[in-house]
Amino acid sequence: MQSKLPNLGVSIFSQMTGLANQYQALNLSQGFPEFDAPTLLKERLAHYSQSGFNQYAPSSGVPALQQQIAELVERKYGLAVNAEHSVTVTSGATEALYVAIQALVSPEDEVIVFDPAYDSYKPAIELAGGKTVHIALTAPDYKVDWQQVAEAITDKTKAIIINTPHNPSTKTLKQADIESLKVLLEQHDLYLISDEVYEHICFDGQAHLSALRDESLFARSFVVSSFGKTFHCTGWKMGYCVAPAALMTEFRKIHQYVNFSSFTPAQLAIADAMAEQPEHIDELSAFYQQKRDLLIEALAPSRFKILPSEGTYFLLLDYSDISELDDMAFCEYLVKDEGVAAIPLSVFYNQAPNDKVIRLCFAKEDSTLIAAAEKLCQL
Amino acid sequence: MQSKLPNLGVSIFSQMTGLANQYQALNLSQGFPEFDAPTLLKERLAHYSQSGFNQYAPSSGVPALQQQIAELVERKYGLAVNAEHSVTVTSGATEALYVAIQALVSPEDEVIVFDPAYDSYKPAIELAGGKTVHIALTAPDYKVDWQQVAEAITDKTKAIIINTPHNPSTKTLKQADIESLKVLLEQHDLYLISDEVYEHICFDGQAHLSALRDESLFARSFVVSSFGKTFHCTGWKMGYCVAPAALMTEFRKIHQYVNFSSFTPAQLAIADAMAEQPEHIDELSAFYQQKRDLLIEALAPSRFKILPSEGTYFLLLDYSDISELDDMAFCEYLVKDEGVAAIPLSVFYNQAPNDKVIRLCFAKEDSTLIAAAEKLCQL
Ligand SMILES: CSCCC(=O)C(=O)O
Ligand SMILES: CSCCC(=O)C(=O)O
Repeated sequence: MQSKLPNLGVSIFSQMTGLANQYQALNLSQGFPEFDAPTLLKERLAHYSQSGFNQYAPSSGVPALQQQIAELVERKYGLAVNAEHSVTVTSGATEALYVAIQALVSPEDEVIVFDPAYDSYKPAIELAGGKTVHIALTAPDYKVDWQQVAEAITDKTKAIIINTPHNPSTKTLKQADIESLKVLLEQHDLYLISDEVYEHICFDGQAHLSALRDESLFARSFVVSSFGKTFHCTGWKMGYCVAPAALMTEFRKIHQYVNFSSFTPAQLAIADAMAEQPEHIDELSAFYQQKRDLLIEALAPSRFKILPSEGTYFLLLDYSDISELDDMAFCEYLVKDEGVAAIPLSVFYNQAPNDKVIRLCFAKEDSTLIAAAEKLCQL
Repeated sequence: MQSKLPNLGVSIFSQMTGLANQYQALNLSQGFPEFDAPTLLKERLAHYSQSGFNQYAPSSGVPALQQQIAELVERKYGLAVNAEHSVTVTSGATEALYVAIQALVSPEDEVIVFDPAYDSYKPAIELAGGKTVHIALTAPDYKVDWQQVAEAITDKTKAIIINTPHNPSTKTLKQADIESLKVLLEQHDLYLISDEVYEHICFDGQAHLSALRDESLFARSFVVSSFGKTFHCTGWKMGYCVAPAALMTEFRKIHQYVNFSSFTPAQLAIADAMAEQPEHIDELSAFYQQKRDLLIEALAPSRFKILPSEGTYFLLLDYSDISELDDMAFCEYLVKDEGVAAIPLSVFYNQAPNDKVIRLCFAKEDSTLIAAAEKLCQL
């Protein structure tokens, strides 16, 4: 059988978690919390399942959850979105990204993606028959040159994918970036896919600059978020997409045939948690900032150069003073010989630069972060 | 924005359940059980979630569930499949079908589908850039003419999709069908997507003729099944695909970017239920046969012609002695004026024949079936 994705293998996250388990390493590779989901969320999951809510949810999501999402958008970003027509619950942000890309991209269309890029964008674009146009950002700033973006736009360009706060670089887009982006989208009549799965993890007092803050930007956007990241339940595979009704109609046509609907009791549980414990979301940045700072402090004596982390639950380390190995080889050495699993940055690039940078996930117990830092300080 | 699926709207199941709720009708349209999932399943869902199993499962599924699936395949069909390399857990059978189609179908490829066909096949084929070749089967027998299938095969044909027991016709493929199918697949080197979501609901003592019974047939097959149908939990969106390792490698490449993995606590709960209560599966045919028979008996005084139901939890009714309306109009009349929601058969066809047939779902409480039959007997 001919491969639809001939150059792709098993995702780096599966690979590294596999190695971490095999070598019993501290797993700071794949991004998932070591701590558990809020008690209320788990209680309500059990409650709704045991109360008989185990059949199909509506394909777009249970209305109570759509409503909570719309209220959150209004509360955080000041935008009134229609819960019924503009919000769709998905089986994880990955599904939302996949479906948005399928809805937008036709064969020959080009989509601009910033490398290092989350690994699912490119295969999703290719499966739609589209072409990924890569713009490489590099350590330590990962700054977007909007002039370069303008030059990458052709008459085949259909959309730009942004991700803020950005995985793996941790960078957030600033107001000037959003302005430049908006000008380009409007000038060339492009769509935006805005991956905002870390929207509630922004450090040092920054406000998250969501595409949902700006009505005219939103008018051409699919905005994707994740409950897994926000509620420490990545294994629930719950996310959502917000888009203007006309775009959402096309999104839903595809969503209903990709997996129709998402886990019913979890949707009801998340709706309750959002309504009853809104502070969970409001406190998330502070919660993770403490972990970031703890890890940075614990790594201070090491020979790694620590890159600033502006958001997400990741921290980038430059190991150029420690090893000549390429980052994949360095990560293999780390997991096998040093007992710490990390993610190499090069895998997020189409053409990797020479940066010697790895990514650590700090969504871990403080004791795990300290233990990992101790090992890394030996190098 | 240009539509990727310009001729498609909201799925018939969402439409009809929406109307049933709006008109407070007895909902015998969308296929989902009115009764609840087994107690053990719900208890274990709560248990695993509350014990902290809320992070990503491996993309291919938790090993305990892959193992249970492999054991079930061996026990029921006598085929030894490799749990690690040949079994992938998916977010519902819909996702499994979607991914198998994306893995197989490239632009211009043709896929043979038997109408009436489950509504997700065609959009999934079209999204892959392929062409659906429809072979229409008609009431009351819905018999496949394999000579006609042979004639529909071209040098672009890539795969055939079968569904047995078949939704919505309720028909099961017989040994002679499987033999004819196998000859065609081998002669023309085609792949098989075998949708067997109702594999455990086969009536009147028939054995389910799975593609998993025959090693050389399996060698070119993606076999799809559903836990939602089997464990009365359609809202959990849990299914799986079994395929030879080489085909599964391609399936998994796509699955990992469509939604990466499925709800972790549910996977663990289902694995327990399969291990501890295998009788649930073994008794499912008898459970539903009682409901089928009850509905048939209750409808005996009606003016509907009842078509034989060989499997699934559906019953087809021919209303040609009752109304001149087309089946969509008849179903709208039924839900609005008579308080019973059903599904018209014509929506499952590319070119609908003149059959006046509707589908009832009998995965309902006996009292609901009797109440619905009483209403239908008035017509
Ligand atoms: C779906 S596994 C990837 C988890 C993640 O978001 C990451 O590690 O970047
Ligand atoms: C995903 S909704 C469709 C349920 C079903 O299988 C049917 O009614 O045929």
